[in-house]
Amino acid sequence: MSNAWNGFKDGQWMTKVDVRDFIDKNYSEYLGDASFLAGATEDSKTLNEMFHNFLKEEKEKGGVIDMDTVVPSTITSHKAGYILKDIEKIVGLQTDAPFKRAFHPFGGISIAVKAAAAYGYTVPEETVKLFTDYRKTHNQGVFDAYTPEIRRARKSHIVTGLPDGYGRGRIIGDYRRIALYGVDYLIKARKQELAAITFPMVEDKIRTREELSEQIRALQALIELGKEYGFDIARPAENAQEAIQWLYLGYLAAVKEQNGAAMSLGRTSTFLDIYIQRDLDKGLITETQAQEFIDHFIMKLRMVRFARTPEYNDLFTGDPTWVTESIAGMNLDGRSLVTKNSFRYLHTLYNLGTSAEPNLTVLWSDRLPQNFKEFCAKVSIDTSSIQYENDEQMRPVHGDDYAIACCVSPMTVGKEMQFFGARANLAKALLYALNGGRDEVSGDQVFEKTKQDVLKADVLDYDTVMARFDKTMDELAEVYVNALNIIHYMHDKYAYERLQMALHDVEVKRNFATGVAGLSVVADSLSAIKYAKVSPIYDERGLITDFTIDGDFPTYGNNDDRVDQLAVELVETFMNKIRQQYTYRNSIPSMSVLTITSNVVYGKNTGNTPDGRRAGQAFAPGANPMHGRDKTGALKSLLSVAKIPCESCQDGISNTFTIIPQALGKNIEIADSFNIETEVQVPNLVNLMDGYFTSGGYHLNVNVFTRETLKKAYDNPELYPNLTIRVSGYAVNFSSLTDEQKREVMSRTFHEQF
Amino acid sequence: MSNAWNGFKDGQWMTKVDVRDFIDKNYSEYLGDASFLAGATEDSKTLNEMFHNFLKEEKEKGGVIDMDTVVPSTITSHKAGYILKDIEKIVGLQTDAPFKRAFHPFGGISIAVKAAAAYGYTVPEETVKLFTDYRKTHNQGVFDAYTPEIRRARKSHIVTGLPDGYGRGRIIGDYRRIALYGVDYLIKARKQELAAITFPMVEDKIRTREELSEQIRALQALIELGKEYGFDIARPAENAQEAIQWLYLGYLAAVKEQNGAAMSLGRTSTFLDIYIQRDLDKGLITETQAQEFIDHFIMKLRMVRFARTPEYNDLFTGDPTWVTESIAGMNLDGRSLVTKNSFRYLHTLYNLGTSAEPNLTVLWSDRLPQNFKEFCAKVSIDTSSIQYENDEQMRPVHGDDYAIACCVSPMTVGKEMQFFGARANLAKALLYALNGGRDEVSGDQVFEKTKQDVLKADVLDYDTVMARFDKTMDELAEVYVNALNIIHYMHDKYAYERLQMALHDVEVKRNFATGVAGLSVVADSLSAIKYAKVSPIYDERGLITDFTIDGDFPTYGNNDDRVDQLAVELVETFMNKIRQQYTYRNSIPSMSVLTITSNVVYGKNTGNTPDGRRAGQAFAPGANPMHGRDKTGALKSLLSVAKIPCESCQDGISNTFTIIPQALGKNIEIADSFNIETEVQVPNLVNLMDGYFTSGGYHLNVNVFTRETLKKAYDNPELYPNLTIRVSGYAVNFSSLTDEQKREVMSRTFHEQF
Repeated sequence: MSNAWNGFKDGQWMTKVDVRDFIDKNYSEYLGDASFLAGATEDSKTLNEMFHNFLKEEKEKGGVIDMDTVVPSTITSHKAGYILKDIEKIVGLQTDAPFKRAFHPFGGISIAVKAAAAYGYTVPEETVKLFTDYRKTHNQGVFDAYTPEIRRARKSHIVTGLPDGYGRGRIIGDYRRIALYGVDYLIKARKQELAAITFPMVEDKIRTREELSEQIRALQALIELGKEYGFDIARPAENAQEAIQWLYLGYLAAVKEQNGAAMSLGRTSTFLDIYIQRDLDKGLITETQAQEFIDHFIMKLRMVRFARTPEYNDLFTGDPTWVTESIAGMNLDGRSLVTKNSFRYLHTLYNLGTSAEPNLTVLWSDRLPQNFKEFCAKVSIDTSSIQYENDEQMRPVHGDDYAIACCVSPMTVGKEMQFFGARANLAKALLYALNGGRDEVSGDQVFEKTKQDVLKADVLDYDTVMARFDKTMDELAEVYVNALNIIHYMHDKYAYERLQMALHDVEVKRNFATGVAGLSVVADSLSAIKYAKVSPIYDERGLITDFTIDGDFPTYGNNDDRVDQLAVELVETFMNKIRQQYTYRNSIPSMSVLTITSNVVYGKNTGNTPDGRRAGQAFAPGANPMHGRDKTGALKSLLSVAKIPCESCQDGISNTFTIIPQALGKNIEIADSFNIETEVQVPNLVNLMDGYFTSGGYHLNVNVFTRETLKKAYDNPELYPNLTIRVSGYAVNFSSLTDEQKREVMSRTFHEQF
Repeated sequence: MSNAWNGFKDGQWMTKVDVRDFIDKNYSEYLGDASFLAGATEDSKTLNEMFHNFLKEEKEKGGVIDMDTVVPSTITSHKAGYILKDIEKIVGLQTDAPFKRAFHPFGGISIAVKAAAAYGYTVPEETVKLFTDYRKTHNQGVFDAYTPEIRRARKSHIVTGLPDGYGRGRIIGDYRRIALYGVDYLIKARKQELAAITFPMVEDKIRTREELSEQIRALQALIELGKEYGFDIARPAENAQEAIQWLYLGYLAAVKEQNGAAMSLGRTSTFLDIYIQRDLDKGLITETQAQEFIDHFIMKLRMVRFARTPEYNDLFTGDPTWVTESIAGMNLDGRSLVTKNSFRYLHTLYNLGTSAEPNLTVLWSDRLPQNFKEFCAKVSIDTSSIQYENDEQMRPVHGDDYAIACCVSPMTVGKEMQFFGARANLAKALLYALNGGRDEVSGDQVFEKTKQDVLKADVLDYDTVMARFDKTMDELAEVYVNALNIIHYMHDKYAYERLQMALHDVEVKRNFATGVAGLSVVADSLSAIKYAKVSPIYDERGLITDFTIDGDFPTYGNNDDRVDQLAVELVETFMNKIRQQYTYRNSIPSMSVLTITSNVVYGKNTGNTPDGRRAGQAFAPGANPMHGRDKTGALKSLLSVAKIPCESCQDGISNTFTIIPQALGKNIEIADSFNIETEVQVPNLVNLMDGYFTSGGYHLNVNVFTRETLKKAYDNPELYPNLTIRVSGYAVNFSSLTDEQKREVMSRTFHEQF
């Protein structure tokens, strides 16, 4: 290790795998501003142009340039691939050609076949046979075990987005370990850990021993992948370029092997800064070269693609892969974890243009260096491509080396993973409570345990409704959690993430991540029932499918406790019901309030609600107030969302926020010499975020643009090919949204006042 | 069901799957003699001649006529195959041609490749890749989880014959259910049972739900197999020929899908007799036709083949498949379960000639009809092809509808299964006790927990040796049981017997079947140490590898309690140590004293023992006294073995017995008119078995021939191509034994006096 570790400060990281300790001992906090940053090199520009041409070709070809349907993707399934080999500083593609999507049948062959068919590709019959008759897939396993209750709940969309036909994702390998230790060391360590699991061979131990053996095999394949690209990653990285390359090859192996719903990267910028700073200090590289490495690395991350079905795309539009990278945050010792490399990552949005991926996530604290906070605000104003999460809220739970998976899910890197669980539709559950378990759309009896007569009433009584709703949520929690138990049992059995788990500790904490949709719809509905008069309307089937509302009621999003507390109680109640269930593999239940773009589909499948929302109308995303109902300004909207208790939502509370540029600087008179952005808007946005997060806010997607801008992009897509916006939990290229989603985004609240 | 069940007596079997009740209500006990039996038809002779020609061709071609190495064998993998379609009354082959062996990679691809290579066949590279990279096999799973302790124990042969590279077998599907109910009914019942497994979805329930779904899929494939041969087995059988055909197709599906170590048939003769008797009573068929159906059915069972490796063949020679069929036994109500069909099955040994398969097993009771007992004795004297098990010992434990799997393992048909476990070498364990856990052959430190200095002594002290031996057996039990835990976890995961388990109740009792080898060697060794003076001899490594024995000592097999009780204590002690271990899936530990032909290999791998046995010399098979040491006559030998307590050996105690014909009739003066066999030998053999089994004997392989006969067959194999003999737990064609095994068989005790 002598060459590789030369110049690093000692620590316990030298005797066992401990990346956090390495970072803690070796990183250089950066308090300065962005002026050191370098622009794109000629090579970067050339590659970026090629990249954008591929993007264009992809769009022209209907979404896919090329697709492999023969070779199941594994770490070593394909030969090396390049964009333009000679000038690429960081290399590695998922297949042997750029933008050629790989074939991932292990999650489910029928999904893989559908995904191929959607783009005019065919999976050979013998391959289908292989994954039907000989090699069972996750999807088949799940459906073999699903109960009728689960099938009904799934079909009626009261539980949706279950990872039962594709990779669960939301597992972050600690790819930094590869650079710091080299793969040989990791294999050796894993072999020792395997040896420590001794008699008696109860099932848990047998499973773990097999998993560790699979992990070792995956690490061996990873060495082969390195060789394919000409690198010896069995040994640790010896300089910055190698460190980035080693780390990226680990990530690449993960996306070659798994088509996970979210393939997040982790928290790599400050780790890599240590290598870059060492090379800079030694005079081995210049800042321009450092930025070029990062630019090329980020470009690779932008290229990650999976073959997905139209149904999946409807739920999560714009080909998101959630290559989430978590930047900044505070060290436990009070220093910030901001380095020059934190700036470099964000700077790629300028050097390469805005982009939805990687999903750049700043771990915010009011104690972050002012220069960095202002740079973030500037980037948000310029690009609307960053999301923020409350480091002060997560650090006490996860320490200072956690990262965000997917949108809002925090996990200590290499020490925690999650069993991803999509979400339950609470708005529909409220309607089931009224209709005795029958679905308001299909009329089917979906819930059997809480089957009862449709509620008969002229006016809905709050206590009566709540009593029924409480029991319905019991049944919902039971059906939902048991579906997830089956899914994760089968995922471990048929599509285990051996490479990603090889980059975790053996004794990993498993979170069992549930989620809810329709928070604001339910809160407002309950508020209407409580504070106004809501009269049910019965249809010809005898079901309550509409309501008349008489009188006013407070709505969530205006810092009004009468309704905000209803939202708080709702998440607390449902989380407690989740906690009462058995959860697979000693996992710890958690919950998120997050919909991603699926809020549109949820709305489409949910009937009229007592808050006045019409059937089919989109829900608000995540924990957002309903569109247009947070009428009392940005601050009050944020304060309402900040009340949702993170104790009940350890997996995250997503808030997608749009403010018009003028609102950030409108009280300033504009003089010719005055730079309104840097001198007014930036500090205002910094203050806004400091205020939101110190009030207990969990997450914020920051968009800074006007409805008119979106309208123009909607009408003239060719003029805005790369307009990136933050939706719920990820960023997306506006032009890739469905027409319906575009309209939903435009209908959201655009805060025009603080 | 009206046609199918017309004429049957009512019972609860009509409202739920209950074959035992159907038999109990409907069978006709037969008390008469064998005079009703019919000879072989012309068609049977033609087919049998073809069969024997195939056998000859198989031998000439070095053991295999043809082998599929491309299509993994499943229930529906091959087109229909025939010997001579027009004259076959019962049809169905494992592949599309007679004696063409199927390709079974699910247990382990490397084993399948080795088995093919042994006969000059090659598995295509892409198939190997499929079962290496995409479809993991049982074998790979097991080795991923094996601990170093287990690997050492396995390598040193202290634990052997583990089903870690092939199908575990010893699972008997209740194939009768197919005939009685038809597959549609079974599918419907299983779907109801699936629906009854409800929340919470703990891992056990998820696994069971998936298994039941797989079972339903297998039953659906079984219907397809029927269609391929032109039968609608979705409905129940309507006559005798259909009943046999339906039942056989179920068994065929099992051997198409599983290459199990023992693929036993169950207890079918009396069940089928009900259908035959109904057809006979209606005048639909003649006795000749009835016998023809059975002859053709049995011929098919004789054709079952698997592709196996040379190592496997060394252990279990002669291509045994243990198509064990259990005949007779008593009904709980006091009637015997003997029917005309019990005779017909045995009569195939005359109509078709003797044969090792099916492994015909008579469940003996002194209360069986005298005519049947005498017919069995006659068949044994004529063919040496039958084994006997003590129905009086098993019925109280397993009821009156159990069958023997493999050699001696009883299980209630459709209600019990077993996790097969091969065996531990107790003789080697005794040497480990002396040598502090080091192997006397390799010198390796195999046992770590009981690692200690080699015992230093001029003369071995019994108590000292026993104290060490006791601890060694603790370690042996732990290593052994944990190996089996891993094996059965992986077998369920990667090579689950979905068709066979579809023909079991859902709530099945699982036996965890361990076994021991070297019983008589250890008993005699301990006797020598206790009653004579045994001095250890140390080799240059400091290990005890030889002994001098001063003085006489009693040996096991002479009804001498001084040593017989040592054998009794040994099995009781080891069984108690097995019971202390955790056993997979709530299984119930059991043990057998059975070696099959592996006693030769055990001996080969075990050094000199304190009883005077030389290194490399074969053990006695099963619970047999050592060759030549049971010098005091047949009766005393049998009485010694009968002492081994079945409470500690619920999985069986095998005794292989050879008596010369003269010993059964030697006191009779032979007159011209006198039929020595029927009038003297037969009743003598019946008396011998009555005596043995009422004394508590568990099992008896009966051979009636002289050493000279074997010697002639050894010297002139061409003269005795079909000489069948009983070895430990199965019958074998003498000519197919290895040279070493032939010599071992000839060295056994041939009882020349009663």
